[in-house]
Amino acid sequence: MLFSDVAKHLNSVLVGEDVEIDSMNEIELATSSQLTFAIHKKYSSQVSLSSSKAFLIVDSLVESVPNGASYIICDDVSLSMAYATKLFASKPIEPKLQVPIIGEESYIDDMAKVENGARIGSNVTIMAGAYIGTKVVINDNTIIHPNVTIYRDCVIGKDCIIHSGTVIGADGFGFSHTKEGLHVKIHQNGNVIIEDDVEIGANCAIDRAVFNSTIVKTGTKLDNFIHIAHNCEIGEYCIFVAQTGVGGSTKLGRNCVVSGQSAFTDHLEIAPFSTFTARSGVTKSIKESGGVYSGYPLMDHREWRRLQTKIAKLNS
Amino acid sequence: MLFSDVAKHLNSVLVGEDVEIDSMNEIELATSSQLTFAIHKKYSSQVSLSSSKAFLIVDSLVESVPNGASYIICDDVSLSMAYATKLFASKPIEPKLQVPIIGEESYIDDMAKVENGARIGSNVTIMAGAYIGTKVVINDNTIIHPNVTIYRDCVIGKDCIIHSGTVIGADGFGFSHTKEGLHVKIHQNGNVIIEDDVEIGANCAIDRAVFNSTIVKTGTKLDNFIHIAHNCEIGEYCIFVAQTGVGGSTKLGRNCVVSGQSAFTDHLEIAPFSTFTARSGVTKSIKESGGVYSGYPLMDHREWRRLQTKIAKLNS
Amino acid sequence: MLFSDVAKHLNSVLVGEDVEIDSMNEIELATSSQLTFAIHKKYSSQVSLSSSKAFLIVDSLVESVPNGASYIICDDVSLSMAYATKLFASKPIEPKLQVPIIGEESYIDDMAKVENGARIGSNVTIMAGAYIGTKVVINDNTIIHPNVTIYRDCVIGKDCIIHSGTVIGADGFGFSHTKEGLHVKIHQNGNVIIEDDVEIGANCAIDRAVFNSTIVKTGTKLDNFIHIAHNCEIGEYCIFVAQTGVGGSTKLGRNCVVSGQSAFTDHLEIAPFSTFTARSGVTKSIKESGGVYSGYPLMDHREWRRLQTKIAKLNS
Repeated sequence: MLFSDVAKHLNSVLVGEDVEIDSMNEIELATSSQLTFAIHKKYSSQVSLSSSKAFLIVDSLVESVPNGASYIICDDVSLSMAYATKLFASKPIEPKLQVPIIGEESYIDDMAKVENGARIGSNVTIMAGAYIGTKVVINDNTIIHPNVTIYRDCVIGKDCIIHSGTVIGADGFGFSHTKEGLHVKIHQNGNVIIEDDVEIGANCAIDRAVFNSTIVKTGTKLDNFIHIAHNCEIGEYCIFVAQTGVGGSTKLGRNCVVSGQSAFTDHLEIAPFSTFTARSGVTKSIKESGGVYSGYPLMDHREWRRLQTKIAKLNS
Repeated sequence: MLFSDVAKHLNSVLVGEDVEIDSMNEIELATSSQLTFAIHKKYSSQVSLSSSKAFLIVDSLVESVPNGASYIICDDVSLSMAYATKLFASKPIEPKLQVPIIGEESYIDDMAKVENGARIGSNVTIMAGAYIGTKVVINDNTIIHPNVTIYRDCVIGKDCIIHSGTVIGADGFGFSHTKEGLHVKIHQNGNVIIEDDVEIGANCAIDRAVFNSTIVKTGTKLDNFIHIAHNCEIGEYCIFVAQTGVGGSTKLGRNCVVSGQSAFTDHLEIAPFSTFTARSGVTKSIKESGGVYSGYPLMDHREWRRLQTKIAKLNS
Repeated sequence: MLFSDVAKHLNSVLVGEDVEIDSMNEIELATSSQLTFAIHKKYSSQVSLSSSKAFLIVDSLVESVPNGASYIICDDVSLSMAYATKLFASKPIEPKLQVPIIGEESYIDDMAKVENGARIGSNVTIMAGAYIGTKVVINDNTIIHPNVTIYRDCVIGKDCIIHSGTVIGADGFGFSHTKEGLHVKIHQNGNVIIEDDVEIGANCAIDRAVFNSTIVKTGTKLDNFIHIAHNCEIGEYCIFVAQTGVGGSTKLGRNCVVSGQSAFTDHLEIAPFSTFTARSGVTKSIKESGGVYSGYPLMDHREWRRLQTKIAKLNS
């Protein structure tokens, strides 16, 4: 697509030469063929260092745009970005792609649906009612239980077990907002990557990234009802107990243990080997590895225990 | 059905003339062809003002029944009401209805099930494993992702997106209780109405109303794992972050924002433009619009922040 | 299988005579044909009283093994146990079993999957997209709504209603851990038993037992999003409101009422007729029946109310 097509879609004026664009990305990751955006003057250094040739920006960032790059000045960059994502959204199905490639000794139930363009490894089991979307890749020895849904473009490692009712790759929860209070969808054009030897319990939901990938790394085990939002990165060998949730773009290091009904807000970075007891509510990044935490607001576990004793005494 | 048939089903005596009844409803909404009920003397004015011609009532309400209406005196009105709902329950499927009507340019996957009596608009996408029940209506441009379930009689607006694993129209959680501690099902004979431009995340559950409708209004966006109980009314342009729940009959005004793992008890009325931070526990109605709330018990957000500081000091 | 086959699988030395083994079980329940295990010296009396003829044990328990029984000494019993469970795991499907037996007047939708070896009673309804696994038994008059999943070997009573998206019999969340921090699956070789007249809401998950059965007893009603972990036992006529969770092996007596977003840790015993208000966090067993509880940490409900008043006063 040409940048001028984006300008037309946004009813906006393109400044600079026209550029061929194949997708969108955040400013620090965008390549020369990716459209990017910056919503505030404070991102001027990121704009000036970006490899992108096509920017959606606020007025005050015009000076920061690198030589040779083009831009559109937007009244509301966040809204324009949301409208632009629609241009790069894939259709849910592409019937004209080639029929799925299925590896040796794999079992695909007659009542499972595997869309064209998918690639299934060897010794894979896909049970009845499972849905494997367009261009999904599933590697060797993985078991997809009945009524699992894997949206298009996602990648599942080898030796994984995905339990029933789990949804991998549904749209992340992202909207821009008009002055009138309407919510405009930011199309979620990334995917989900599940690495090897991951087990995911029943009725989980791991959302696709807005750009790039939501990642669950090797050897991690999720209990039932785990919510992983878009663009999260869950490290190797983590344990998530039931009914926990992780907000968008939050990254956990390896071997974290998260007990039941805990939650993380978005954009956090959690050090490896961190442990969270039940109902932890994590709202800040954690830099030191090996800690044990509890409570909401979160605190050191021993401190939390002491505090509960103190609170109980209020009643005496 | 005749009111005398209800009396027979309940092993009870009908007082007054027999009446044709087509359904049941709450006392304030019941029409002249709807059976209604009142469990306590305090509802005497509602009984006397009701348009219904057929009442299940306690002994002490006999005097309040309008002239010309009929009634059954029940030892336990709540139990009798539950038993009566069974008479008006629809079967899950009705194979003899006409085959579904499908609008132009709609895509229905071969592995989706659309029951007879359903009506699908134009440019609708219904993916594999989706279930569209008897008499369901889905309006133009809506996307139903794989393995979504929409129970009979529900209505989905246009331009909606329903993600995988979501269940719309399962029975609300309603029971009457015997003296021995058994739970008698109150059949949920209402439906769910999703208005236009609503997006619902993965693995949500929006229950059908006991009578009338559970409603999610135009432009509202739900993240994953949202629970909306029977007879709720969610206003326009609300935002619900993951793992929140709303108890039965609770009504939210427009543009409310509800953060993750929050919950509302039943029968509340929440003013428009209310914001709830993560894990809010809402147990009382909110009359003033525009507030920001936190905590359980719920309080003003700034007050909650101050309180957390005070609580933390207990440990020093 | 012979105990010597287990020894070979574990690269370990069998001490004593070889024994025929058909399954595994906990030490107090194991029969003479079941392999069992003991991870610590403190279980010496259980070992000496066990009916098992085949033990995986730590060095210090050798003296406790009954006469005539055989054993393997393990460096890490927990890990060896996990590896051994793999030998007794069933395959997800067994196509060579006989076709399902379907009772009279039962309706099985063409788009439901019923695996071979299943037995369906009379007047059962199984709707589109439902999955009924190998050897599953479903008794009379039960309704299985669309897109329900019932894993192999589970048993559903009569007069039950299972709502869409619910998963019964997915693997319990059990792993042993290596010194390097890897998680080794404990195969969940038990099942789930749902007794009669149980209603289960939408998108619940009831996990299969590691050995033996997870049980939900007669007349219990579950709302949406209920998580019941492996080996739980939920008594008769309990009520679970939405988004609650019960940890592994926890047992509740009859007629308990559990309000929304509550949770129980594992291995608890809860007396009958206990009531838990919303968001209760239960971490200790309850011996006296009839109590009402709130909060996390849990306390008597009236005490919790008093405490909330005291906490609120900190801000004044």
